[in-house]
Amino acid sequence: MPTRDEPVYVRVEGEHILGTLITPGSLVPGVLFVHGWGGDQRQYLARARDVAGLGCVCLTFDLRGHAQTQAQYESVSREESLRDVLAAYDFLAAQHNVDSDAIAVVGSSYGGYLAAMLTEIATGQVARAARAGVVQGLGMDAAEAQAPGRAGPREIPAAAGETRGKQGAAGMPVVHRRRALVESEHDTIIPHQVIVNYREACVSARSLTYRMIEGADHGLSSESMQAAYTGLLVKWFKEIVFGAKPAEPVPAEPAPASATSETAPAVA
Amino acid sequence: MPTRDEPVYVRVEGEHILGTLITPGSLVPGVLFVHGWGGDQRQYLARARDVAGLGCVCLTFDLRGHAQTQAQYESVSREESLRDVLAAYDFLAAQHNVDSDAIAVVGSSYGGYLAAMLTEIATGQVARAARAGVVQGLGMDAAEAQAPGRAGPREIPAAAGETRGKQGAAGMPVVHRRRALVESEHDTIIPHQVIVNYREACVSARSLTYRMIEGADHGLSSESMQAAYTGLLVKWFKEIVFGAKPAEPVPAEPAPASATSETAPAVA
Repeated sequence: MPTRDEPVYVRVEGEHILGTLITPGSLVPGVLFVHGWGGDQRQYLARARDVAGLGCVCLTFDLRGHAQTQAQYESVSREESLRDVLAAYDFLAAQHNVDSDAIAVVGSSYGGYLAAMLTEIATGQVARAARAGVVQGLGMDAAEAQAPGRAGPREIPAAAGETRGKQGAAGMPVVHRRRALVESEHDTIIPHQVIVNYREACVSARSLTYRMIEGADHGLSSESMQAAYTGLLVKWFKEIVFGAKPAEPVPAEPAPASATSETAPAVA
Repeated sequence: MPTRDEPVYVRVEGEHILGTLITPGSLVPGVLFVHGWGGDQRQYLARARDVAGLGCVCLTFDLRGHAQTQAQYESVSREESLRDVLAAYDFLAAQHNVDSDAIAVVGSSYGGYLAAMLTEIATGQVARAARAGVVQGLGMDAAEAQAPGRAGPREIPAAAGETRGKQGAAGMPVVHRRRALVESEHDTIIPHQVIVNYREACVSARSLTYRMIEGADHGLSSESMQAAYTGLLVKWFKEIVFGAKPAEPVPAEPAPASATSETAPAVA
């Protein structure tokens, strides 16, 4: 089994002693899940387990103003939410077994908007801090909705991206700038045009996967809608992050002008 | 693949948000390596990699007074060394993927003495802090030698131990109170009687493995002696920690009165 050495500092009586942590196995991708406005981390817990089972370390968390900090619901700002997401991202990237060059972000609704923001911040600010190279923003089934302060940007400023072709220690290709957008067909909160805007903004995404969940509402209120979203996520991770082909080939149809050949119409 | 949930607190702007870290795979045993007096962590680095390759998280470290803190070589006390070992133990036990109920400690010479001390402290003090149940002290190829302040105890106060039979998440039995002693045949630093004393002190060890490395000196000064020690360690971990039978059966011989049936004469 391969192992990894990592220098560590162990604190003892106000001093530090130098150590080396030797861990079996390879670094694995990290996946951050961001719940929607008014939700909490439970929204993504089961999905996070499904994705972790593929070989990722996953992190769900409660945005301030939600769950145990519900008291701040009325006062929390979008900037604070973004700082929450950044802190959670840093926490995940600092895990010993996480490849900080391969972190994906998944969010729903307001969480999808924050995920889109994070991927841009992370490529600049966080990368400057030598913490991470590029992250993926994906799984945004809706965005810009219900956000405190609606004046969100109209686009995801998609930076020039490329597949670096670097092989992860487990032989998995490290993919950058892969984006996925999932739309609910009957979403009365997020207008279809918002999704179109997001898609249009992904001009230089190395890969773009757009799916519509047929018959679904904004909150994915039935079990079958939830399962459809989970299925899309897991399939995306298998294909894009772990490089496996989807179990069933998706029928080829003409891709919209704004999307790469990986774009396909709704399958669920 | 199995996954594990762990509640975590993520710090953001002086507050904490609650999260859940979901990790693939099962908890694995931790192994702490303690170098001898005058040595440093490099003494155990290659061995730690070999053991980590079996599926453990390993930690080597430099005792104060050694390596980068060599300036304290003359002034460091045995108590400080023990605090170093405790801090390293805590650091290892706190790793997200380490089963804090299954931590082994390996030490050479002075490090073996510290390992023996730690296993007793850990069962009491550390267990009271709800950090760890029982640890193993093993791989002490010599002890009590070269320690600052020689008045070490004449025995390892072996607490009542039992195999709890609890199955680790990976299906590995969690073993407690397994001890191994490795002696160098031509050790001019540690008298044979010290090893006998250690062995006698292991009266209630659930398993005791004693091996002599034939022709070896205290410092295991040749490559073949080093390899023999590494081989013994790896074999012990395979058999006792991971429950696999040794690749080659050890010829059965009468065990000394003080040892359980797992005790066998020198094989290397």
